[in-house]
Amino acid sequence: MRLSRFHLNTSKETPADAEVVSHQLMLRAGMIRKLAAGLYTWSPLGLRVLRKVEAIVREEMDRAGAIEMLMPSIQPRELWDETGRWQKFGGQLLKIRDRKDGEFCYGPTHEEVVTDFARNELRSYKQLPLNFYQIQTKFRDEIRPRFGVMRAREFLMKDAYSFHLGAESLAETYQAMYDAYGRIFTRLGLRFRAVAADTGAIGGSASHEFHVLADSGEDAIAFSDGSDYAANVEMAEAVSPGPRPAAAEAMREVDTPTQKTCEEVAALMGLALARTVKSVALVGEQGFVLALVRGDHMVNEIKLAKLEGLADFRLATEAEILEHLGCEPGFIGPVGPAKTITVIADRSVAAMADFVVGANKRGVHLAGVNWGRDLPEPALVADIRNVVGGDPSPDGKGTLGIARGIEVGHVFQLGQKYAEAMDATVLDADGKARVMHMGCYGIGVSRIVAAAIEQNFDANGICWPEPMAPWQVAVCVINPKDDPAVAEAAVALYDELTAAGLEVVLDDRGLRPGVMFGDIELIGVPHRVVVSGRGLEAGTFEYRARRASDSENLDRAALRARLGLA
Amino acid sequence: MRLSRFHLNTSKETPADAEVVSHQLMLRAGMIRKLAAGLYTWSPLGLRVLRKVEAIVREEMDRAGAIEMLMPSIQPRELWDETGRWQKFGGQLLKIRDRKDGEFCYGPTHEEVVTDFARNELRSYKQLPLNFYQIQTKFRDEIRPRFGVMRAREFLMKDAYSFHLGAESLAETYQAMYDAYGRIFTRLGLRFRAVAADTGAIGGSASHEFHVLADSGEDAIAFSDGSDYAANVEMAEAVSPGPRPAAAEAMREVDTPTQKTCEEVAALMGLALARTVKSVALVGEQGFVLALVRGDHMVNEIKLAKLEGLADFRLATEAEILEHLGCEPGFIGPVGPAKTITVIADRSVAAMADFVVGANKRGVHLAGVNWGRDLPEPALVADIRNVVGGDPSPDGKGTLGIARGIEVGHVFQLGQKYAEAMDATVLDADGKARVMHMGCYGIGVSRIVAAAIEQNFDANGICWPEPMAPWQVAVCVINPKDDPAVAEAAVALYDELTAAGLEVVLDDRGLRPGVMFGDIELIGVPHRVVVSGRGLEAGTFEYRARRASDSENLDRAALRARLGLA
Repeated sequence: MRLSRFHLNTSKETPADAEVVSHQLMLRAGMIRKLAAGLYTWSPLGLRVLRKVEAIVREEMDRAGAIEMLMPSIQPRELWDETGRWQKFGGQLLKIRDRKDGEFCYGPTHEEVVTDFARNELRSYKQLPLNFYQIQTKFRDEIRPRFGVMRAREFLMKDAYSFHLGAESLAETYQAMYDAYGRIFTRLGLRFRAVAADTGAIGGSASHEFHVLADSGEDAIAFSDGSDYAANVEMAEAVSPGPRPAAAEAMREVDTPTQKTCEEVAALMGLALARTVKSVALVGEQGFVLALVRGDHMVNEIKLAKLEGLADFRLATEAEILEHLGCEPGFIGPVGPAKTITVIADRSVAAMADFVVGANKRGVHLAGVNWGRDLPEPALVADIRNVVGGDPSPDGKGTLGIARGIEVGHVFQLGQKYAEAMDATVLDADGKARVMHMGCYGIGVSRIVAAAIEQNFDANGICWPEPMAPWQVAVCVINPKDDPAVAEAAVALYDELTAAGLEVVLDDRGLRPGVMFGDIELIGVPHRVVVSGRGLEAGTFEYRARRASDSENLDRAALRARLGLA
Repeated sequence: MRLSRFHLNTSKETPADAEVVSHQLMLRAGMIRKLAAGLYTWSPLGLRVLRKVEAIVREEMDRAGAIEMLMPSIQPRELWDETGRWQKFGGQLLKIRDRKDGEFCYGPTHEEVVTDFARNELRSYKQLPLNFYQIQTKFRDEIRPRFGVMRAREFLMKDAYSFHLGAESLAETYQAMYDAYGRIFTRLGLRFRAVAADTGAIGGSASHEFHVLADSGEDAIAFSDGSDYAANVEMAEAVSPGPRPAAAEAMREVDTPTQKTCEEVAALMGLALARTVKSVALVGEQGFVLALVRGDHMVNEIKLAKLEGLADFRLATEAEILEHLGCEPGFIGPVGPAKTITVIADRSVAAMADFVVGANKRGVHLAGVNWGRDLPEPALVADIRNVVGGDPSPDGKGTLGIARGIEVGHVFQLGQKYAEAMDATVLDADGKARVMHMGCYGIGVSRIVAAAIEQNFDANGICWPEPMAPWQVAVCVINPKDDPAVAEAAVALYDELTAAGLEVVLDDRGLRPGVMFGDIELIGVPHRVVVSGRGLEAGTFEYRARRASDSENLDRAALRARLGLA
């Protein structure tokens, strides 16, 4: 592509309303333009990158045996009523009435439509398993669209849906998709992690999210330094620490007149925060509960809600705390009340000795507290906290670190939820109708573009991984209008590299070198080659890799070698 | 592709609600499935064909210098208000309210969005000309969606929009697009014509439609057998016939008691229909008008409306006819009244002698009528009829034939209409703001699939042109389960042909030969190769081209040659 025949429109200024770096750089590079809140036009430059991602996703889906199809973006309400999601999906569902007053929505996802397709198309278990996918525009009416294409309303998604006679076949395809996703993100040149995810209300049997790692990521991920283990922080298991040490101190009261938090108490006492215990008052089905975690840990509400009697727990009110503990919040603790109310201790707390808790007296804490001696052993010991960096990995291999990530993919074993609701059956070998099992597998194609930038940029702009770059090589010409020999040499090099199979852009716009180089760096072309009169005389080209700090003068053979050509 | 791992679902029955053959065959072949009125899912088979079309369109647009981008499908009302089309577009515009009560539509076309993009992106004439295109899902809320994907509500379209400083540059890009369209339809293997089209209310300077020729086409096209001339029948000029012959008969009354139409009068008199003249009573700005065309011709209302004073003409009422001619419809004519009312004669009528017209008396016609002698020369001689087969071509080369066509493309010189309304300007060489000129160029990508079938089918199903076929070659295996050697030979052939660059489908489903062949013919694979035990023994494959009536037994070399391989 010759830039003089393309449309590139860059800007030096950082747009005021763009909060994250990918949004800023996509606007500055002119990859996207806002049409309305959460609606973006992909410029020719932006679309080149989007199509790179799309092509790799398609190739790997095909390779994994998925079959591409294309469903309408507009879906009739009737199907959504069958699953109850017309109501349940909430405000993100863009509802539409057509000219005949029929009710439709702009599909935010396609479980209903594909299940309808499958129940009409499939008759026999012999047709299974099947895995259909599409790459298609979706719409979610976000209440607060933001971060450019990272959380846009209209976006490009790859969604796949597999159909099976039983759970075993579903698990096989799930694994095949899991593997395909790994190949996709690897081929895209992204650092990523597959993390075990909460199956939430859907209650399927397995689910993994794929996260592109980036400091700006919205999600915290726990991962092991000694294995492949990774999970959402909320999901990762905090394993039991070693055995409880023996009691060494006597229990004593400590004056803490204004110190209510563990941090304040630890600071006052000159103790490590990990020696204090936080008491959280809850109300569950059986009434008042004290949940205990270490002062340096955070209670995990998802884990709590999985305990018996706490499915719908809530935090206790101040009045309830006064009633049960005789003390205002800030100084509460398990010593005393533990005889009458339920105490749930996190595994770490159960393994502590000589710890500090509130005394249930205003302005007082207790130190040197020990289980069994000063209060009964806890009614229940459970994992009720978020993991933190340095925790042992739950698979026993290595230590957990915490990274931030951007969710770009999700695989899910749906089981029979949708097929059951929509009566999608096939006949089994005995001629009996059986409700199919389903999996679904999504990739946010347009979101990947933004996530890749969050992971790959510097002060000068985007640093694309090679497979995502709009072009692999930029040939920049210095003063082409003044020196026809330079212009000719640049075209010759452009033709040569293009013929060798590289995607090359020729910057023949005749701009000043500084402006031209600034553009090429901003848009993130991995390899830059400068053709100048001085270089021609010396028989060299000036080469610079996007992330390199300096350029080098290379002769043609060395340049070709640097670009991976023979 | 192995069919056993694909999803093919054919049917022998012709669906009751499918009126046209393409709709019937697409349903029977399982290419599409209806989700709701005018909304279709493209099955894996259908999508393969759709993508073939899309790829060729993209390649030729790129080759012609157009630059691909992608605009949102959802568009804000504000832009449509600027051009006044939010109101004017009518019921086909699918209007949407989002959760914040903002007004949007699902784009049926993108003039407003692309003009907004251009006015924000473009500053200088130096950036021009530019031609942006996208391949994208559109929605038109048809009041009566029908014929499957031929007139669906949601459909895939390629739309391009070019921007220019002046009309000359626009004309150049218009020609480039015209040429690209020709290459696209030629490469698709379709018989088509580019026809001059009416620029209608938009009033642009030039417009051509591209029609795929098919007997079932909705549009009639006049084309020359001696040149490239082609036009919509409504648009084609009917040129003047030779000079008027001398009068040979005396004018006389003929009794036509119940004969009101030219056909009935000609039959009664034993005359050629072309000797009669039809009188059509109109009311224009200046009042009552009689328009005359030959009995075998049809009045063209578009041409009439272009005459002075007839822009908003209407047919006269029976009362007005009685008032001006003193006679009921069926027996009216120009003799007598021509002295007081305006008579407009079609060129053919002006060149007639000894013709037959109504006598303005109930049950009577006049024969042997001649201009100048029996009535004054017409007030106006003009082209006011549709051309018919056999008319001379208006370019003077050859004779016109009439064909039916399906519109699949449209190129249009919009001029400054949208740019003016939306104030889309650039600075010219003198630094003055100039409103840009625009062209727009559409192709109905999904409609092409249906149109191609209307042109290419037989009693057994679809006969794809090779470039559109889902696969070029089908390798059919007879009894693969009973004879492993046959199965192996088939896979070897499949691998060999695939490696040679052909797109091959291996029918390894193990169906009975008749069912298998029926499927392969129905879905229209151009080349079929049968691998059987008997063939293996003889060292031959049974080959049949889709349109051939018989199959041939070919050895490997002959088969490869037949498939175009060395």
